[in-house]
Amino acid sequence: MSYKKRLSRLRKAFLPRAEAFLITCPENRRFLSGFPSEDVSLQESAGALLLTRKEAFILTDPRYQEEAKECSPLFEPRIYRHGLEAELEGLLSLLKVRSLLLEPHCLSWAFFNRLQKRLSAVELKEAPPLVERIREIKDAEELEAIRKSLRIAEEILESIVPRIRPGITEKALAAQIIEMAYRRAEGPSFPPIVASGPNAAKPHAEPSEKELRLGEPLIIDMGVKWCGYCSDITRTFCVGKPEQRFKEVYSLVLKAKEEAEKVLAPGELAKRPDLVAREVFRRAGVERNYWHSLGHGVGLAIHEPPSLSFRSRKKLKAGQVVTVEPGLYFPDWGGVRLEDMVFLKEGGFERLNRLGFWYL
Amino acid sequence: MSYKKRLSRLRKAFLPRAEAFLITCPENRRFLSGFPSEDVSLQESAGALLLTRKEAFILTDPRYQEEAKECSPLFEPRIYRHGLEAELEGLLSLLKVRSLLLEPHCLSWAFFNRLQKRLSAVELKEAPPLVERIREIKDAEELEAIRKSLRIAEEILESIVPRIRPGITEKALAAQIIEMAYRRAEGPSFPPIVASGPNAAKPHAEPSEKELRLGEPLIIDMGVKWCGYCSDITRTFCVGKPEQRFKEVYSLVLKAKEEAEKVLAPGELAKRPDLVAREVFRRAGVERNYWHSLGHGVGLAIHEPPSLSFRSRKKLKAGQVVTVEPGLYFPDWGGVRLEDMVFLKEGGFERLNRLGFWYL
Repeated sequence: MSYKKRLSRLRKAFLPRAEAFLITCPENRRFLSGFPSEDVSLQESAGALLLTRKEAFILTDPRYQEEAKECSPLFEPRIYRHGLEAELEGLLSLLKVRSLLLEPHCLSWAFFNRLQKRLSAVELKEAPPLVERIREIKDAEELEAIRKSLRIAEEILESIVPRIRPGITEKALAAQIIEMAYRRAEGPSFPPIVASGPNAAKPHAEPSEKELRLGEPLIIDMGVKWCGYCSDITRTFCVGKPEQRFKEVYSLVLKAKEEAEKVLAPGELAKRPDLVAREVFRRAGVERNYWHSLGHGVGLAIHEPPSLSFRSRKKLKAGQVVTVEPGLYFPDWGGVRLEDMVFLKEGGFERLNRLGFWYL
Repeated sequence: MSYKKRLSRLRKAFLPRAEAFLITCPENRRFLSGFPSEDVSLQESAGALLLTRKEAFILTDPRYQEEAKECSPLFEPRIYRHGLEAELEGLLSLLKVRSLLLEPHCLSWAFFNRLQKRLSAVELKEAPPLVERIREIKDAEELEAIRKSLRIAEEILESIVPRIRPGITEKALAAQIIEMAYRRAEGPSFPPIVASGPNAAKPHAEPSEKELRLGEPLIIDMGVKWCGYCSDITRTFCVGKPEQRFKEVYSLVLKAKEEAEKVLAPGELAKRPDLVAREVFRRAGVERNYWHSLGHGVGLAIHEPPSLSFRSRKKLKAGQVVTVEPGLYFPDWGGVRLEDMVFLKEGGFERLNRLGFWYL
């Protein structure tokens, strides 16, 4: 979908709600304009887009002025030296804007308070996830970028496997993954998780100086970015010959994944696959060791809608790309998590992964 | 300073303002409790601290429950399965809290709105940067971590220098920096900038597939984390023999840095060194090519107070660690930026860098 078409779809969605829309989410910014820069932090934005019925601006500070010029020509760059709020005050008054939609998830409460003080004549409104709804359904070009992103991630993971041996540290493996992610792609889509033994019981473990030991489970959860699009894959290995316990936990997680995938299709409730996985674990008496939801959407953001969680009230749709990643965690021992990415299409899904499941 | 002392100082500062304080800033969370996890994104927090006069809790979801147990024992872990807002609703009602301070910079407007709906009986207040004020002044242990962090960054930078030659890509150099940052430290403190030729005119350039060419300027801006503490160093090189223009720009930036450092001392206005650097550039007719401020505080966050900007109204204080990093940027040609870290102490400062300045 061209930037022009994306803008026109978004205008249809937001203009009934307000005269202008301020886009501060980095992924939405990129999706609409091609502006590639990421924010330094919540407190330090790389800029914003401002859309009205006719106009489209990219607002940024001088550090990013060259990147702003390289965006879609649909956007007119405005470089501010005194902060985004001051720039908006002037621009909105010039454009005679009286109502402005804001992205509540991608805006700090502090920024909102400062904006409200300056823009006393403008009605500020919480935007629903309008851009996210367009982003949820991937077009052919986006799907191609995700395929390529996952292909590279799998190649990196495969090249790491021969290095899994007792004595190597989690950090050494993580460093190799990251180095390859920057060399072969645009970098990691998130800091890779390389977690062995008891660390594997931390779903978001940070790689440590711990050395791998014989018989331990090892979770590697990693991905890269390609044209901005994220991949996300998890495989669990056993360092050396697996014991009975490893095999049992592994089989159970794999079974939960397979059962969940049987009910994974457009039109199905997004919570159903998660409930099915939970049921597999419940029957085995380990439901309390499943600490997260089954999966999440992936695209320009590593975690985006839909959420495959028992708490979701949404239905799945054709065109979504989601992860399927059940896991079981036992603090004294470790854990097993297995994750694929799938593309939902009429009647079911297409698995995007090529790598299968094996212990080592 | 022990966690106990940090908490006691913070309680003195916040209790006159409200009965409880919710800490959502990742760096503040770590500074007060040792909780090391980082947020996935603004929309996906790893948890929060809740402080009252007597109690201290670490609130997180099951993914981080093991990390929560490893925090300072001053904090009681509360693991939530239905979101932070629901957990807070129950806990604040149990504790009979009627007023709650929030960190406005580290809280999304959406989260605030959801909280306000749930906590109708609790007065929600914007907190001033109370934890940041304690963090601004580094104690001996923190300074040691920063020294070590910078030492490792300099070693990595030195080991990269022999690889600077025509034909190598920016990304290949960046990948090597990152790999070493993970192997020798806790990873990079920010995605390294490796920007050559015209890319060096983008202060926050992302490393590209562009190959280095003879005669081009090359900016490398990088740092690592050690015990959570960031380093930040920039050097500019010339690929091959430098032409006259490179030498002139380099000398001018170095001169601006040296002049600015003459007025860098506790008690001085934080804007003064930046104004001095600007004046050097103004006299040379290139003030418009200096696109950012002179420097920033560094600690658990890569950018933290004080800001060495002409817009600042603060005074510098002994115990602060700041960068000094003037730069000049010319879109068709490239740029030069030179950055050291310094520790402010009575009468002036101590340079923390060991590496000097050279082109190659």
